[in-house]
Amino acid sequence: MRTRAAVAIEAGKPLEIMEVNLEGPKAGEVLVEIKATGLCHTDAFTLSGADPEGMFPAILGHEGAGVVLEVGAGVTSLKPGDHVIPLYTPECRTCDYCLNPKTNLCQSIRETQGAGVMPDGTSRFSMLDGTPILHYMGCSTFANHTVLPEIALAKVRKDAPFDKICYIGCGVTTGIGAVINTAKVEIGSKAIVFGLGGIGLNVLQGLRMAGADQIIGVDLNDSKVEMAKRFGMTDFVNPANVTGDLVAHLVELTGGGADYTFDATGNVGVMRTALEASHKGWGESIIIGVAPAGAEISTRPFQLVTGRSWRGTAFGGARGRTDVPKIVDWYMDGKIEIDPMITHVLSLDDINKGFDLMHAGESIRAVVEF
Amino acid sequence: MRTRAAVAIEAGKPLEIMEVNLEGPKAGEVLVEIKATGLCHTDAFTLSGADPEGMFPAILGHEGAGVVLEVGAGVTSLKPGDHVIPLYTPECRTCDYCLNPKTNLCQSIRETQGAGVMPDGTSRFSMLDGTPILHYMGCSTFANHTVLPEIALAKVRKDAPFDKICYIGCGVTTGIGAVINTAKVEIGSKAIVFGLGGIGLNVLQGLRMAGADQIIGVDLNDSKVEMAKRFGMTDFVNPANVTGDLVAHLVELTGGGADYTFDATGNVGVMRTALEASHKGWGESIIIGVAPAGAEISTRPFQLVTGRSWRGTAFGGARGRTDVPKIVDWYMDGKIEIDPMITHVLSLDDINKGFDLMHAGESIRAVVEF
Repeated sequence: MRTRAAVAIEAGKPLEIMEVNLEGPKAGEVLVEIKATGLCHTDAFTLSGADPEGMFPAILGHEGAGVVLEVGAGVTSLKPGDHVIPLYTPECRTCDYCLNPKTNLCQSIRETQGAGVMPDGTSRFSMLDGTPILHYMGCSTFANHTVLPEIALAKVRKDAPFDKICYIGCGVTTGIGAVINTAKVEIGSKAIVFGLGGIGLNVLQGLRMAGADQIIGVDLNDSKVEMAKRFGMTDFVNPANVTGDLVAHLVELTGGGADYTFDATGNVGVMRTALEASHKGWGESIIIGVAPAGAEISTRPFQLVTGRSWRGTAFGGARGRTDVPKIVDWYMDGKIEIDPMITHVLSLDDINKGFDLMHAGESIRAVVEF
Repeated sequence: MRTRAAVAIEAGKPLEIMEVNLEGPKAGEVLVEIKATGLCHTDAFTLSGADPEGMFPAILGHEGAGVVLEVGAGVTSLKPGDHVIPLYTPECRTCDYCLNPKTNLCQSIRETQGAGVMPDGTSRFSMLDGTPILHYMGCSTFANHTVLPEIALAKVRKDAPFDKICYIGCGVTTGIGAVINTAKVEIGSKAIVFGLGGIGLNVLQGLRMAGADQIIGVDLNDSKVEMAKRFGMTDFVNPANVTGDLVAHLVELTGGGADYTFDATGNVGVMRTALEASHKGWGESIIIGVAPAGAEISTRPFQLVTGRSWRGTAFGGARGRTDVPKIVDWYMDGKIEIDPMITHVLSLDDINKGFDLMHAGESIRAVVEF
């Protein structure tokens, strides 16, 4: 079949909207009509050429929602008409990782996913002249239709709006999951969130759900305050307005350091601050942000020997097929908010404008509706 | 009263054996006759002058065992004749730290202990000319008699030999506790221990107790192998004999990385190797060793984002008054071994020979018996 897609032809160039060929689903695969997709910093990172693993031409996008149109041989958990959210972290439920309750990092299709192809080693996408186009993060949601492995699709309720729940495919789950699955924040905790963008806001509402007492937001941009308060922030710190040492200021503000700190900036200097602002004896610092290639974190080992833990999270520690449908329920039940974070809705033809808004800091999340 | 002690007059000089004055216990304090004391690298570190917090003159030593001679006003948990092990990490059971189940780092007397004095701000030791001598780590076990706060003494059974259980005051508890209290290693785990000295051997036997399946020891000295096997090591790796990348070798040897790794070297480069040799998704790396002043650990944050945790431990996460008596029981019941690690027993007059043996790598633990 043919479908319309925004294709990343090469690094550093705008996406090109074009008709592309899409082969139908092979065994274990599913054809999905994408109804909406969010634009994430990770897409922009790859498009920029800074991602050392980026490959072109490719169809980017990994934060979508849509409807199953057709299933390949052997697919049992999905049928045409089901509503789904693509998962860049799949959940096969049979690999050593899925069977270990300590991790969500299913490895069953990691190699082919990393190589931009389906598990059989080939791509379903191609240009009209036959040139293959690579998949991206196993999702490629910047296409009106895409093919995914069955294990990379979460089945969700049908009454949930696509243009909101697509955000659960990455940002919402990453932020809330970092709190709930990775840190396992307890009621009454004190927490600090560094970076109040699309991920940080979801960390805030995760902390509110978890019953944290003090939820401090740290950002260099005062304009983030209003929205952050809406999502649960109790205290705001702009490092530009702190005289003296930021760690010392945060330790004082929390009465000894935070029980949990979260980096949602990707800046390795901020990651160090986050660790050192966590409480002696029991503070845990969770890295969510993706650092530039080659960047390293450092600290004195004394920080760890005196009881702090340094950890990280990917996709919020969530097992997608199991956890994503629950998060959709939370949204539909009003336990979490998504609508105020979807600041822009665009057509596929305007997708490059969405990236411009992101880089200008004008959007929290821009969503493309098909 | 007067007692004999090995006094650290100044940094970098041998200890001087001399008579010193010792005031009796004040309120909340206890006079202890030290029967035996181990010599630990931390004592040598402070004596060398490399410890930025080292102060002189002081009576070093923090790994002892002895008998209560006299108690000060208000002391209720100890009486003359009780056998005790001094605790450089006390357990007051009332501070915010003691009341938080996540930590063992009781802070109730931290400031005065760090300043080399008793909780009232004064020292009990002085030279015969009246010059005050500082306490060290709240213990000062290089004296035949010493005074400690009641909360810094673990009461232990009377049939346990002083010249063995003194080692439980630091090395044994630190190594075993890192496994049991901090890492909480599960039966069937795979683990790597870096550094097979006095701490590393105790990590090994902690892992054996915890039921680990694979216990890999890493050391540059092949002569450590025999003793390490006795304490539970199943595989030995000498990095000098590994061609290529040590992390890759260890990941292969463990079939993907270790569930738990432990640094018992204090070398920040080894700490990084230990983290990176732990398993993607769930590996935990525990720093036990004390790094040189100013040294920093580093890694790519990707190591944490993909599921590894970087942590540390002090005194093996043990709450001394509660846990140390249990470890003495384990020794008396044959669950753990100590005797083969006590390689040298010396008199107080020969204490400097004990440090020579340590620096020459000829001892695992030298113990001074009074």
